[in-house]
Amino acid sequence: MEAIAQSFTDYYYTTFDTNRSGLGPLYRPTSMLTFEGAQTQGQDAIVEKLSSLPFQTVKHQVSTRDCQPTGDGNSLVVAVTGQLLVDDQQQPLNFSQTFILNPDGAGSYYVFNDLFRLNYG
Amino acid sequence: MEAIAQSFTDYYYTTFDTNRSGLGPLYRPTSMLTFEGAQTQGQDAIVEKLSSLPFQTVKHQVSTRDCQPTGDGNSLVVAVTGQLLVDDQQQPLNFSQTFILNPDGAGSYYVFNDLFRLNYG
Repeated sequence: MEAIAQSFTDYYYTTFDTNRSGLGPLYRPTSMLTFEGAQTQGQDAIVEKLSSLPFQTVKHQVSTRDCQPTGDGNSLVVAVTGQLLVDDQQQPLNFSQTFILNPDGAGSYYVFNDLFRLNYG
Repeated sequence: MEAIAQSFTDYYYTTFDTNRSGLGPLYRPTSMLTFEGAQTQGQDAIVEKLSSLPFQTVKHQVSTRDCQPTGDGNSLVVAVTGQLLVDDQQQPLNFSQTFILNPDGAGSYYVFNDLFRLNYG
């Protein structure tokens, strides 16, 4: 389970930082994103939201990554904290992000729930 | 859904700050807590863990509270960010906490998943 969480988050943030539109295959039409309180549903709308965030470059650094199985025994909840640096800002921002990964029926997982927040001090 | 999340978090943090052992009824024998990376399972073990945290007083202040239904349509994921102040420290600490609330079959919810992290700047 930890290996899935690690592999997923490594792939997610690397893709986010290099090619945001490449995140599409991680979502499905039923997936939900709450980004800084703004709700979006569906793969296309989520990719559009992430692609339109107002920065050119971003670099995520994961600090902690916790995971647990959910009550149905099929899904994983992954809670991440870390820091991100956008464009040419010098001061990293703390963030926390929660994913619930559901099995895709083909041996892998997709993101059903995605909740992202910056953590201001 | 937002009302459930608000009511739950209000109750949870008020109880945490005034009577930690009173959190027991919110958990079940199958519930899981990952607290600063340390994993605990079961109502009794979770209450023991929370009760033994090495501070006398704590005050949580919630900054953000996001929620979504999970893929099975029955549960809710609630992602909280906020600050907490322990004992006589002057400097609040940022925290993030993720709960998955499962229906208890009697019209209410219990905590199946609980993941807590402090967010260091």
